[in-house]
Amino acid sequence: MTEKTKSSQIGSSTPDNTTAIKEYLNTKRGLVEKALQQFIPEQENKLESHIESMTYSLSAGGKRVRPILCIAVAEALGQDMTDLMPIPCALECIHTYSLIHDDLPAMDNDDLRRGKPTNHMVYGEAAAILAGDSLLTFAFELLSYPSLVGAIAPENQIRLINTVAKAAGPLGMVGGQALDIASENKDIPFETLRFIHSHKTGALITASVQCGALLGNASQNQFKALSEYGRDIGLAFQIVDDLLNVEGTTEELGKAVGSDADRNKATYPGFFGVSETREKAKSAVEQAIKALEEFDQKADPLRHLAAYIYERTN
Amino acid sequence: MTEKTKSSQIGSSTPDNTTAIKEYLNTKRGLVEKALQQFIPEQENKLESHIESMTYSLSAGGKRVRPILCIAVAEALGQDMTDLMPIPCALECIHTYSLIHDDLPAMDNDDLRRGKPTNHMVYGEAAAILAGDSLLTFAFELLSYPSLVGAIAPENQIRLINTVAKAAGPLGMVGGQALDIASENKDIPFETLRFIHSHKTGALITASVQCGALLGNASQNQFKALSEYGRDIGLAFQIVDDLLNVEGTTEELGKAVGSDADRNKATYPGFFGVSETREKAKSAVEQAIKALEEFDQKADPLRHLAAYIYERTN
Repeated sequence: MTEKTKSSQIGSSTPDNTTAIKEYLNTKRGLVEKALQQFIPEQENKLESHIESMTYSLSAGGKRVRPILCIAVAEALGQDMTDLMPIPCALECIHTYSLIHDDLPAMDNDDLRRGKPTNHMVYGEAAAILAGDSLLTFAFELLSYPSLVGAIAPENQIRLINTVAKAAGPLGMVGGQALDIASENKDIPFETLRFIHSHKTGALITASVQCGALLGNASQNQFKALSEYGRDIGLAFQIVDDLLNVEGTTEELGKAVGSDADRNKATYPGFFGVSETREKAKSAVEQAIKALEEFDQKADPLRHLAAYIYERTN
Repeated sequence: MTEKTKSSQIGSSTPDNTTAIKEYLNTKRGLVEKALQQFIPEQENKLESHIESMTYSLSAGGKRVRPILCIAVAEALGQDMTDLMPIPCALECIHTYSLIHDDLPAMDNDDLRRGKPTNHMVYGEAAAILAGDSLLTFAFELLSYPSLVGAIAPENQIRLINTVAKAAGPLGMVGGQALDIASENKDIPFETLRFIHSHKTGALITASVQCGALLGNASQNQFKALSEYGRDIGLAFQIVDDLLNVEGTTEELGKAVGSDADRNKATYPGFFGVSETREKAKSAVEQAIKALEEFDQKADPLRHLAAYIYERTN
């Protein structure tokens, strides 16, 4: 293990590392947003309003965690991402569609998202459902984008599409959301909360890491280690979100603080209290960094990123 | 042109042909429904209700036009479909999701579909939105299904996925639905109605035909001719649906007769009257059959199917 990788162990994060990962995230976020603008369908006669409703949510900011993870993993394996940007962009489209549908009146009924009015507040409920449907479908257009021919081995590309579809579908993200909705105002055991988190949030984060692994032609062992990393930071990410929902400010969250508790949603702090929840987040991040043991310094952004998730709670 | 192909020209359809195509459609529908049952995710602990809501709409009957078209086209090109059934099933999943979302209170607010309560009437609005989301995502899991490896050239499979995604997405089916919703209670020119039809219904029907063409390794000319066939029967299909909505019985339609007019939706009979609309359907069917000129008798089911669409109006 190099000195550099050691320095990103949680608890020993330096201000330099924090600045470096923030700069890294800003740069990658810029690349993702530029690529999204490039790929989103052109305004077409008669469909201006529909395309606008898709673009509204896609351009509403956000951390772009999933595409950045995909890029960082591929680059950790030495892959140049220049010609492969449709893939990370597709992951962001799926995430954005899930937010639009989660916010709907029939679901979480949220008025604000990332500090802006939610899609249905601006375009109405029908248009918001359709904006989500289009973003989800468009994601698969991007995953099979003609410009990728020759840039990825077609067998890898099909496996990648299957990985994303499974993670986002009935036994993945949508299943998690379905159980989340069905569990509102109910006393659920911790096991059910864990299931909701790992499906609703964890599955697409893990798949984003696996996409990077497939793009970087990971060996079987590398794929396994990276999937473990994905599962661990997915968990950390969700625990930290629960913590911020209890402790954060509306400004940080872009939505009302305490809104989970208001809806009687089960959360980690609700089960374990703030202090033990914080320990669990730390432990997940440590596991994530440990999963990267066999990787060289090209994986440092992945290590710093894991540590940074935890630091958001401080 | 063989005697057999001549006999399926519209206007010269014999009772024998009608019986034959009905039997053909029944057989293929059975195959599709058996395959759907095989592929739909198993009931999983905690997600029973979500999987049930998907299965409810998927099993609610329907003509299975899109998967049957895909199969009939591939078989017209000599392709054995036994190992390729995930592809036609995916098309039916996309069609079913679109019906669930179209029926939602925020959209067409329909209580009945195929003679049964709509998804949201049974499972509630949130669950219905999610059932649709899962069916759409699951379609792409099927299009990239592991069992297809080796059964299709991977390049063809990626092109097929891209074709379906484009047809179902923002500049295809969802775009058409968005414009349809936005046009309710408005005076729209015929050109806009044509755009809505060709996007909302036509795009996925054409894509279903193109999937069959890709599975059957169609030549460039065959692909072009079959795409033309797809566009023509897509148009015929929609015109006939408009006619049945005016003329049909609730039993035939599985929904309230005249419901389009009730919502002030533009229709072909609204623009042209019933008699001229009937002529337009006939002409579209004739065009469709003409597009198959260069195909041998293996394409007869496609010819009979086109003729049968028109016969539904008699």
